[in-house]
Amino acid sequence: MALVTAVLHRGVVDSDEPILCADDLGVLRGDGVFETINVRDGQAFLLSEHLDRMANSARRMEFELPAKTEMAELAEQALAAWRGRFTGEEAALRLVATRGREHGGPLTVFATIDPVPAERIAPRRDGLNIVTASLGVDADARGKAPWLLGGVKALSYASMMAVTRWAKSQGADDALWVSADGYALEGPTSSLLWLDGRTLCTTPASTGILPGTTSAYLLEHAAKAGLETAERLITVEDLMGTEAAWLSSSVRGVAFITSIDGKAIAQRPDITAELDKLAGFAVPE
Amino acid sequence: MALVTAVLHRGVVDSDEPILCADDLGVLRGDGVFETINVRDGQAFLLSEHLDRMANSARRMEFELPAKTEMAELAEQALAAWRGRFTGEEAALRLVATRGREHGGPLTVFATIDPVPAERIAPRRDGLNIVTASLGVDADARGKAPWLLGGVKALSYASMMAVTRWAKSQGADDALWVSADGYALEGPTSSLLWLDGRTLCTTPASTGILPGTTSAYLLEHAAKAGLETAERLITVEDLMGTEAAWLSSSVRGVAFITSIDGKAIAQRPDITAELDKLAGFAVPE
Repeated sequence: MALVTAVLHRGVVDSDEPILCADDLGVLRGDGVFETINVRDGQAFLLSEHLDRMANSARRMEFELPAKTEMAELAEQALAAWRGRFTGEEAALRLVATRGREHGGPLTVFATIDPVPAERIAPRRDGLNIVTASLGVDADARGKAPWLLGGVKALSYASMMAVTRWAKSQGADDALWVSADGYALEGPTSSLLWLDGRTLCTTPASTGILPGTTSAYLLEHAAKAGLETAERLITVEDLMGTEAAWLSSSVRGVAFITSIDGKAIAQRPDITAELDKLAGFAVPE
Repeated sequence: MALVTAVLHRGVVDSDEPILCADDLGVLRGDGVFETINVRDGQAFLLSEHLDRMANSARRMEFELPAKTEMAELAEQALAAWRGRFTGEEAALRLVATRGREHGGPLTVFATIDPVPAERIAPRRDGLNIVTASLGVDADARGKAPWLLGGVKALSYASMMAVTRWAKSQGADDALWVSADGYALEGPTSSLLWLDGRTLCTTPASTGILPGTTSAYLLEHAAKAGLETAERLITVEDLMGTEAAWLSSSVRGVAFITSIDGKAIAQRPDITAELDKLAGFAVPE
């Protein structure tokens, strides 16, 4: 179970206490939005950016989140309870807002905090073997079809879970979504970064990927590591020929890619170390 | 609220009683399956077929539902409570199974029953104006990418809800998913049927549509109405030129299409009446 659960306007509750009714649209339709946030030293990293993205996801689904201050207060209630029990460990703060119950009433809004298991952050040290999986759509399809919810972090993640199971069944650590027209897009729960000379690149938001908070932070601060930045499309073939590539996400952090579809790719441990340092990700021993 | 709620191994509970914890994968990831079933005269229509489809959806998502007898018993518990309160009205029985809580334990399995509002079944009498919306994928894409969960009725319905909202914002009653290569597929929550001479046609399951229980029943019994049947691909352009077309679903029933993207299409009230009769859908006055 989640170690800490807090509900909007109620505060911390027992994590074993059910909080959603049978007709909550979050469960009936995956109709809601969420964020998962890195907690270190008891503080949520990039909380403001996550809250902004969450509010944007909700607006794209035509509902309004509570005010940012209320969402931040909910997060802080959960964090305070977490700090009361643990200090040093990394954790994952999850914020969830569903459209509420089917026949009306308020949104269902809650937060959970869980410790991050060691195997979840091991890829910061060990890297990831990934396999490509078709997302079925062209790189420009979701931009033209807003109902496909490109760029929205909705609760409807069944395909993300399915492709992750499939990747593991292939002996890989994770999947990489590839557009029908051959472009590498993102991981099921992570952003794609790669190095071209001294330029740190990522996928353009126009492809309908979820704009990564961690990747945005890394690009914003890349100059400190002497790197230029760019948003570009890249084919899988070209990705295999880059100097290095990573999947970044809030909890797992910066994980370098070691192979794609069984073929080893180049690595740049020096740049990996710079990226970890920029975003403050501790690499396990 | 749902008028009746029943939980597996617990039976009927107060519909205002929360039954899902904050870390239920059904809400965190839309990670589960569901069915919505027509209830008439207090009985669930095609319950066995719906339970089979639900079990298949779960297997595609790599989990096993409880035994069919247990699922049927859950449905019957809800139906018995419904019959105790209402008799004549049509209702919608919903069966839901999530993967359960994040850190293990049993599935979360429950049933709800709601009366069907008059406006929901009015399309049996009034028909539907629909607008086409791109699903972004080619008609054969999901067959090649099982992780996209074509043919699976997962809880991850955020895009289905988004495209329905978009259709209504265009002044239409419903949407029609169209593949990137131009084939009409299905509605967000319904199957597509059309008439070609004396042949009642629907979309092949190979396109990744959800195989409809109502449409399957209609095709199975079409000979009683003197109709042949076929599964075919059809372009939107060809659909506009058919003798008649319908969207069928368990609760709304058989709704004839009156226009597609603002262009009126032909209708066959005689065949509509035959289809209603075959599946026993009462047409409102």
